Amino acid sequence: MRYPDGFEFELLHTDGQARLGRLTTPHAKIDTPVFMPVGTQGTVKTLAADDLETMDARIFLVNTYHLYLRPGVDIVEKMGRVHGFTSWPRAILSDSGGYQVFSHLGRNKITDEGVRFQSHFDGSYHDFTPEGVIEIQRRLGPDIIMSFDECVPYPTTPEKAKIGVERTTAWAKRGVKQFEKLEADGSYPSQLLHGIIQGSVYGDLRRMSTEKLLELDFPGYSIGGLSVGEPKELMTEMLEVTLPLLPTDKQRYLMGVGYPEDILMAVERGIDMFDCVLPTRNARTGLVFTATGPYNFRNAVAAEDDRPLDPDCDCYVCRRYSRAYLRHLYSVSEITAHRLASFHSVNFFIRMMRDIRAAIKENRFIAFKDQFLSKYCENRACSRE
Amino acid sequence: MRYPDGFEFELLHTDGQARLGRLTTPHAKIDTPVFMPVGTQGTVKTLAADDLETMDARIFLVNTYHLYLRPGVDIVEKMGRVHGFTSWPRAILSDSGGYQVFSHLGRNKITDEGVRFQSHFDGSYHDFTPEGVIEIQRRLGPDIIMSFDECVPYPTTPEKAKIGVERTTAWAKRGVKQFEKLEADGSYPSQLLHGIIQGSVYGDLRRMSTEKLLELDFPGYSIGGLSVGEPKELMTEMLEVTLPLLPTDKQRYLMGVGYPEDILMAVERGIDMFDCVLPTRNARTGLVFTATGPYNFRNAVAAEDDRPLDPDCDCYVCRRYSRAYLRHLYSVSEITAHRLASFHSVNFFIRMMRDIRAAIKENRFIAFKDQFLSKYCENRACSRE
Repeated sequence: MRYPDGFEFELLHTDGQARLGRLTTPHAKIDTPVFMPVGTQGTVKTLAADDLETMDARIFLVNTYHLYLRPGVDIVEKMGRVHGFTSWPRAILSDSGGYQVFSHLGRNKITDEGVRFQSHFDGSYHDFTPEGVIEIQRRLGPDIIMSFDECVPYPTTPEKAKIGVERTTAWAKRGVKQFEKLEADGSYPSQLLHGIIQGSVYGDLRRMSTEKLLELDFPGYSIGGLSVGEPKELMTEMLEVTLPLLPTDKQRYLMGVGYPEDILMAVERGIDMFDCVLPTRNARTGLVFTATGPYNFRNAVAAEDDRPLDPDCDCYVCRRYSRAYLRHLYSVSEITAHRLASFHSVNFFIRMMRDIRAAIKENRFIAFKDQFLSKYCENRACSRE
Repeated sequence: MRYPDGFEFELLHTDGQARLGRLTTPHAKIDTPVFMPVGTQGTVKTLAADDLETMDARIFLVNTYHLYLRPGVDIVEKMGRVHGFTSWPRAILSDSGGYQVFSHLGRNKITDEGVRFQSHFDGSYHDFTPEGVIEIQRRLGPDIIMSFDECVPYPTTPEKAKIGVERTTAWAKRGVKQFEKLEADGSYPSQLLHGIIQGSVYGDLRRMSTEKLLELDFPGYSIGGLSVGEPKELMTEMLEVTLPLLPTDKQRYLMGVGYPEDILMAVERGIDMFDCVLPTRNARTGLVFTATGPYNFRNAVAAEDDRPLDPDCDCYVCRRYSRAYLRHLYSVSEITAHRLASFHSVNFFIRMMRDIRAAIKENRFIAFKDQFLSKYCENRACSRE
């Protein structure tokens, strides 16, 4: 594929396999490794665009499946595509919807042609095809879009995983064709299309999936189908199989990952981009990420604790509010508790990535990782320690 | 009563009966007439302290009844009283809890001694006495606190309203005594105590209530028991009976009011302070205040409307977001919709008060009021037009 206008990925420095890079899109310069907050329905839950700007987030993720169902592609397109609609001037990435249509199993019918699924809102029937999903994403207009893939659930058999890889490969080809056809049309913004590598937890299938996608020469690669319940060792193993095959001059995105310890593991092996709902989803249950590990501010002991959520954090929430106040807000069902906790935790991930980049630049990534984990895991067992 | 240290009310200018003033507390200088956002449980619902600062709110209101039940007075006191607990460095006013304990009728037993009520959280029994309510508020520590009053529901009989006035008078006396006793103790922050005028919709009872409270020489007066369902004409009439009796050099607070048209009516008659849950409560149902009247962004026509909530507004929400986006967020249950709408509407009231003050200063309040209402009511009948 032709590398799209207005985009660039520069590999600036490596420290072992860990990579410091810069991904430029028409809307932002994104330093990598980067954590992308998830804004499934066009907003990072409980936060607003200025909150993300305060954290210096340069990119966030929207979900094709959700925006397609509500408010619908017509409305988003008419309101200035995703950037205009969400009033977010920086970069946006959309996932293909593959993960969503496959994670509502039973309601869906998968064929080589595509997927027929039922809306989780109103039960109406819809078809996602590799061509359709590309067209939807071209119309929605994010900077970076994804091929339609079959995300096989875990656990699965090698046979089913192989069918998934073959379908993902065939769909990637059809997606590229559709992408280039619409490109010729000239009426869509410049966008960068990622291929998505599948293969479940089988090294040979991951290798096959990677090699097939490489033939299509995508300007960027995503690794999908991990962090879906498999043991962490298998996730590590799949990255170790896949990453050496990928070109060094293109960005690599590990989809849906993850915990801080997973991110460190993956950065060490050469991943550039991450996204995860954990910081916001957990925050809404009272669980936030801190330098010394997860912390639940709903605990009774927080009631008279005047310390910030994370004494090591300088975010606006930690500078201003106590655990006692946040616990109170949560106890009395004030949604401000959800927002403040989400702000802190998303900022935690964004700051961690900034620290990771600084460490790579100074060739001290491993030392940083060890130091981070030794503090992060001091209060409990940590799978990545 | 002695006027408390660190407090001052200056009457700067009058335009007819409308008053421009400045209320100084140890935490803020508050230009009056002022609208105080309501933060019942220690936060203005969906907003955070920095949101209020962005709007230049100088004071907000907390609820004695709610904070007493959760998190409890001990915790608030230990966490630096209400200012420390909520991390709000400017002024805070607390209501006495009278309205709350009387609005949960059937669960409460009222005697001359006080009220025994059941918590709406867990059904536990509690007693509020005039002395106890003062002590709770001294410990909570807001700048301005309220006497315990009997807020008679509407409609009621003159007999019951008279008992309410007599009780409120007796309780005010007991409250003052307790306040001064605790003042002598020296361990509480300097606070300003308001007496609350009752009397339902009966002019002679309002007059009686006012005269009795004047004997106690409060440093400020609240008018309670209005905006509880009575016809608007009666609210106006009660203000016209009461306000001429009050000293001009002390601030007057009309509790729980109200709609923009009510605020204009009351400013015209000499009220200095207002509070109301309307901007936040309505916003959470999709209804916001705009220069041309209430606007519901849940309406289907909003789906493709790229205008801001209020084209005449320069708040951060109106500068950044479209009706289409807010409608979408609301439709898909993103609480960010509640926050952004609440921000706009609270800011609407604060800006309206700023405009009112400018108009009074320039002796054009009546012209301002007429102009405001003619635009505000252009799309529908307006009771105050």
